[in-house]
This record gives sequence, C-alpha cells and structure tokens, in this order.
Amino acid sequence: MIISGFVSLIYHEIAAFFAFIKALLIVIPASLLVYYFTRSKKDNILGSREAFLLVSLSWIFASLAGALPFVFSGAIPAYTDAFFETMSGFTTTGASILTDIESLPRGMLFWRSMTHWLGGMGIVVLTVALIPLLGVGGTKLLKAEAPGPIVDKITPKITETAKILWSIYVAFTVIEATLLIIGGMDLFDALTHTFGTLATGGFSTRNASVGAFNSGFIQIVITVFMIMAGMNFNLYYKIISGNFKDFFRDTEMKVYLSIFGIATILIAVNLLKTYNGFGESLRFAGFQAASILTTTGFSTADFAVWPAFSRNVLFFLMFVGGCAGSTGGGMKVIRLTTMFKVGINEMKHLIYPRGVFLMRINGIAVRKDIVYPIAGFIFFYVGLLLAVTLIVATGGYDILTSFSTSLATLGNIGPGFGKIGPSLNYAFYPAYIKWILSAAMMLGRLEIYTVLVLFTPHFWRR
Amino acid sequence: MIISGFVSLIYHEIAAFFAFIKALLIVIPASLLVYYFTRSKKDNILGSREAFLLVSLSWIFASLAGALPFVFSGAIPAYTDAFFETMSGFTTTGASILTDIESLPRGMLFWRSMTHWLGGMGIVVLTVALIPLLGVGGTKLLKAEAPGPIVDKITPKITETAKILWSIYVAFTVIEATLLIIGGMDLFDALTHTFGTLATGGFSTRNASVGAFNSGFIQIVITVFMIMAGMNFNLYYKIISGNFKDFFRDTEMKVYLSIFGIATILIAVNLLKTYNGFGESLRFAGFQAASILTTTGFSTADFAVWPAFSRNVLFFLMFVGGCAGSTGGGMKVIRLTTMFKVGINEMKHLIYPRGVFLMRINGIAVRKDIVYPIAGFIFFYVGLLLAVTLIVATGGYDILTSFSTSLATLGNIGPGFGKIGPSLNYAFYPAYIKWILSAAMMLGRLEIYTVLVLFTPHFWRR
Repeated sequence: MIISGFVSLIYHEIAAFFAFIKALLIVIPASLLVYYFTRSKKDNILGSREAFLLVSLSWIFASLAGALPFVFSGAIPAYTDAFFETMSGFTTTGASILTDIESLPRGMLFWRSMTHWLGGMGIVVLTVALIPLLGVGGTKLLKAEAPGPIVDKITPKITETAKILWSIYVAFTVIEATLLIIGGMDLFDALTHTFGTLATGGFSTRNASVGAFNSGFIQIVITVFMIMAGMNFNLYYKIISGNFKDFFRDTEMKVYLSIFGIATILIAVNLLKTYNGFGESLRFAGFQAASILTTTGFSTADFAVWPAFSRNVLFFLMFVGGCAGSTGGGMKVIRLTTMFKVGINEMKHLIYPRGVFLMRINGIAVRKDIVYPIAGFIFFYVGLLLAVTLIVATGGYDILTSFSTSLATLGNIGPGFGKIGPSLNYAFYPAYIKWILSAAMMLGRLEIYTVLVLFTPHFWRR
Repeated sequence: MIISGFVSLIYHEIAAFFAFIKALLIVIPASLLVYYFTRSKKDNILGSREAFLLVSLSWIFASLAGALPFVFSGAIPAYTDAFFETMSGFTTTGASILTDIESLPRGMLFWRSMTHWLGGMGIVVLTVALIPLLGVGGTKLLKAEAPGPIVDKITPKITETAKILWSIYVAFTVIEATLLIIGGMDLFDALTHTFGTLATGGFSTRNASVGAFNSGFIQIVITVFMIMAGMNFNLYYKIISGNFKDFFRDTEMKVYLSIFGIATILIAVNLLKTYNGFGESLRFAGFQAASILTTTGFSTADFAVWPAFSRNVLFFLMFVGGCAGSTGGGMKVIRLTTMFKVGINEMKHLIYPRGVFLMRINGIAVRKDIVYPIAGFIFFYVGLLLAVTLIVATGGYDILTSFSTSLATLGNIGPGFGKIGPSLNYAFYPAYIKWILSAAMMLGRLEIYTVLVLFTPHFWRR
C-alpha cells in the first residue's frame, strides 16, 4: 500500500493518496494489536491445524484490508465489490466488477495489479521469506498455501526456499517489464501488466485488456511469460543450479507444453478466416490459449465472437490449469497426469489381474497411494464446481453463465463464457453471489483442502 | 425381432412385417456362421481379455443388426441414423434422430422400445441367463457388462444370478404395464413406456413424450418406476430373500434417494409460478428430476423453458446417474459416494497426519484401494466428456450444445440443453458426429473400461 501510495503521489492523485494513508492508519494498528495478542508466550510449535487456520485467515484478512483503499478513494464505493476485486486480485483470478477500468486513479490500478503480484507467489510464502521468525513451522505454512499436491523442499531450510522462489519471481518481473518497455509500454503499464502476467492474474489497466496495446511483440512477450509463470518454479531453481536432467525429464512440464501446443494449433487453424494469415491467427490463438490454460485471463481479442470450435477448445483448457508450484490455478496438470496414469494402470490390471505395474512420474516409480489426496481433490473440485454453479443459478442465470462463472472463479481464471465473457465483467451479480464467488476464488487458490478442513468437526476437536 | 414382427402383423403393417423378416433372414444365418466358426474346439476357459472383446463386439453387432428393420421398412432410411437410434436404444440412452416419432409404424416403435428393454438389464446377462452353455466364464462376462464398480454375486452360480435379475425385471415390467393400463394407456403404449422406464431408456411413442398422456396417475407411476429402475437390483433380491437389514443400510440407496428428494423440492419451489400450486409443481419436478437422475430422459414438460435455476438443477443431476447394478447410466452414485468418503478421509489425514481412519460403506469398513478403479473411471469419464465435446464442436456448435450432447450420450441420458433439448432431437448432426456419439453411448453403457482396454497395446500383446 505504501508503494501504491507513492504511485498516487507521482501522478498527483491526492484523493487516492489519502485513501492509502487512511487504510494504513487502520491496517497498521490492527496488525500490531493482532501481533500483541497472538504472540506465543511458550515455545509452541506450529501444528498442521494451526497452519491451515493461519493461512486461511491470512488470505481473508489480507483481502479485507486490501479492499479499504478502493472504498476510501471512492474508486469502488461498495465494500462487497471492493472485497471481491481484492480477493480476485490476491487469488490471481482477475475477475473484475469494474465496468470502466480506465476511469480509476493510477494509484488504485497499481494497487489492484499489485495484489496479483503479492498473491501469485503466496502472501504467506513472502512472509516466511521476509520474517525468519516464522521459520519454525514454516514448512507447514508453505504446504497449506502451496499450489499443487507435492511441495518440493528445494533447500533444507524453508526460509531459504521461500527466498529463492521470491528471487526468481522478482528477476522475472524485472526482465518482463524491461521487455514490455522495449515493446513500447510506459513503466506504469509495463509493471502492472508484468504483475498480471507473472501471477497469472489477468487484471489489466485497460478496458480492452492487452488488446489495447496494438503490438505483436508485446503479445508474444506476454504469451511467453504467461507460459513460464504457469510452470513449476522449482524447475527454474534446478536450471540455475545446473540440474538440467531433472528439468528435461519433468513429466508435468512436457504434458503442459503439449496441451498448450495442441490447443494453439487447433485454435489457429480454426481462426484462419478470422485473421490475416496463419502467423497472425497463431499469435492470437497462442495468446488466448496461454491466457486460459495458465488461468491468467488476459485477452487480445473478444473470444466470445470467435468460431464455436475455438470457444470449445478454450472451454476445455479451463478444466486444466497450470503446473504444481506455479502461480497458475485450476486442477493442475500434475493431478490430471497422475489420474491418467492411474486409469491406464487400472486397465493393465483388468487385462492381467495378477500383474504388478509401476507408475512412473518424472521417470521415477511412484507409490500408488499418492492418488488418494489427488482423487479426493478432483472430486471436491468438481463437486464445488457444480455446487457453486447451483448457487449462482439461484440468481436466475443460464447454465453456461452459471457454470463458467463457477469454473472461472474456482479455477482462478477470470473471464469465461455467457454473461462473463472477456469483454464483460462481474458487476451485475447480486451481493450474496459476489461473496460466494469470493469464497470460491479463495478455495481455488488455497486448493480446497486448506479451507475445507476448517469446516470439518475433526478440525475443532481437542 | 420376431415379437416386433408379430406386433406389425397385429396392426396390419405389412411393409414393417417384411422388414423384420428380411432382417431375420440376414441375422439368423449370420449368427449361425459366427457360432460355427467361433465355437471352441478345446475346453478353453474364457479369459478376462476375451470377455471384454466378446461383450464389446456383442453390443456392436447387436446394434448393427438391430438397425436393419428400420432401414428395410424405410422408417429410418439412412443406415447411420438407424444405427445411432438402435445404439441409443440398447444403451438405454434414448437420444433420437426422429423428427416425427408418431409417423413410424407401430411395429417399428415397438422394436425401438424393445431395444431399451433388452439393453437395460444387459444383452449378455440375458444370454447368460438363457444359455447355460455360457456359464463357464460367465462371471467375467457379467463383470464386463455390469453397471457399477462392484458386482455382487448374489448366488454362487452365475446363471442363477442372471436368471434372478431378469425375473425381477420381468416382474416389474408386468406390474408397471398393468398400472399404466389402469391409468388409461392401451396395451401398446403401456408396454413401450414400461420398456422405456425400467431400462431407464426414454424412447416414447409420442412426440410429446410422456407429456402426451395428460394423467397425473401415469406421471406418478412412471416416476416411481424410474426411481426403482435406478436402484441396485440386488437390493430387490435381498428384500425377496427377507434380508431387510442389508436393504436399509445400503449407503448408495440413501444418497441416491436424498439427491432425488432434494432436487425435486428445489425444482418444485422454483416452479411454483409455472404450475398451479405446490402439488402440481412437485409432480412435474419429481418426474423430471427422476428422469434425468436415473438417465431415463422422458419428459412431461419442455424443461428448456423452465426457469434458469430449475435447468441448472437438472444440469447438476446429469453428472450423477443411477445406482450400481441398476439399469441407469451416468457416473453412478456409489462412485461419487466413495470419492466423497476418500476426500473426507484425506482431510482427516491432514488434521491428524498419523491417524488411521476407516472408510465405511454399507456400515462395513472397506479397503482404501477400492478407490483406484473408481478414480481412474471418473478421470476417464470427465476426460471423454471433454474430448467428445471437442469433437462435437468441430461441427461448429456452441459450448452448451456440445457439452450437453457429450454429457447426454456418455451418461446415457438422451435429452440435454441447447440444440438437444427435450422437445428437440439429434437429427441435425452430420454423420461423423453421429458415429462418434454412438461410440460415446456404448462407452458410457459399458462403463468405459470394457471398451477402452481394447485400445491399449497391452490388450493385444500375447
């Protein structure tokens, strides 16, 4: 907020500046009070249960606080809307209630994009990286916030891991922003769009999203960085430490890039008549496929008016999502890959009932019981998808709108189909649906279990 | 075909009668040839692989042969359409390419409904029941055709089991048909609609489906029998043998009836303004909820014009399906229940990482590894759902139409949303999509694995 306040000052947005000051005057004393009353008197070690509660509450309070500047500045007058927008930001969903993005003060737009950047790599991970104090029990916190079923401890020390991840993230930020400036963006647009890209968020500062920048170079840079942001960040650490073998045999990455490649070609061929030549349609197809697959949600074209087949391919991609350990959302490629291998394994069993078959991931045989949490996750994901669809439908919305709203929020994607297409927004939903969708975004970002366990009687039992 | 030929004679439909004769003149010699060339010279025991191949081929050949009378009589001139209609019949999908059902000869309509009845309890099961010769290896055949992940051997002898199941089925047929006649139907309508109900098929002899019979009594009878047909038939055997304890503690049945009850009430409340009073809306809601949940596909109203919330509830039900061991399709309640319990189990593990938790189904602790085939199934189901959606979309159809076509065929439901609503049909699809949808119906009916294993290299390895 302090940084965004400075941005307001640079652009002489006095009202916005004071909105940040007001918000800080509430947030800082409140944080100190929380710290004072919850600091540990004994040498308590953080348990699994505390980690789940702590992470969930962090995300709720971050959004509650992050919404304040929007309300105070009048940029988003209703608190429900401001909370929705902030939760959408932190969870890197990118679903917006704004009907005219460009009318907002620049300081507010910067803050809006910054919520993406903070949430992308993880609010709690950032805290662990910055405050070594939390090192004890940090692994549990990371697990509760981490995207994906497997948390690789790339270094023995959790604080070290958190620092490395954030360093890679910051380095990518500098590189992408520089490239976007070379492509013709000013610093403000370059930074905000870099935040939206690397976090796979999708908030833009323009009503026409990335489509407002009429530059093939910018489109390609953002496409490449979206794809990079959707990959497991541990892989970059492996490259840095010279471990190319592990990088090139990563099953998830291969599947992820294959899905991206096939989807892009399918859409590009289908768009031949829409754009001028294969090169242009490939560029538009690649951008949109990357945007939906990585759950970013940027757009360079209104894909709602693309031919039906292209729309169906994008709909398909909405079910996939990024890789584990990326900033992307969705079900994650590794889960789908594992389930696919389980299914193939079962078929082998049907053919040879007494055979013993190994499941290999990254070239290494894995224990079959890794499937339990993944199967449970996928069931809850699909269950929540349908449950949220039903709740949205209570407002009287058609199936396509309800279902894709549910998919776009739970998967942290942002735009969808029906009334929430790429050129549209979530403003029209009644308040109760906005709160439910905020919950869906958080459930999606924290990968369901972390939030859902809080609602089991077991959690609260002594 | 012989029975349907007689029906043609009764109604003096000479052309239809000779169409059946012609078809029989092809089918009978062809069957004898197949029998002659494939009868076992040695005392070979039927293996798992042979069972999968035999069952899959049985369904393909049954549909190839069953389509002949439609073509020969001119009722359905194109063979692709006739095959689609017959596969839709045997798989109890009820998706139709007919634009004017009532214009067909009665003999043809009877044959059309009869394919439902034969496919409902299983073509192969029927063969096992009638031809004791197949007793050896019959269990494997039953497993390959059975709906649901668990095959209860209710008697030690497989021929006995098949006979009991078919006897219950025949008894229900007599009871329902009698009740429908009491409700005002003639014998022809009563029998054809009974076939459609008990097989959870959905073919009607009227363009307006069951809505053509303006009788609350008929609606309620069909609702009750649809729900009964969607339950595990082993439960009826348990009741007959006085085992009420097992009946009343059946987890799947409880979940199934709860889903039905809740969906009915939600829709009924939403329909209060559409119909006269709660009683009438409850009747319409109950009928349609039962029809979609059990994957029958009958309709008493055009639910495409119902309020959006009701449509969304029906959309939700399309993902569920009947119980294991029923004639219903879909993912099956037991699979979803098991996955739910796995998910809950995982949450307990997150809270107590070293705890040991039992999963109970029907009051009995089950081994955790029953989840592998179920998880694999659900993954393939959703994967095929999206794959078929994409193939349908190549024809240029919108997401709602493509997706619900895929869901309605793979789940053996019949009607869906978009261009395939309850008052519409599948006639407009190009031939290649009709063949793909025929394959989807068969994959759904044989629960994916039985057909899919044939496409693995392992299957064909010596």
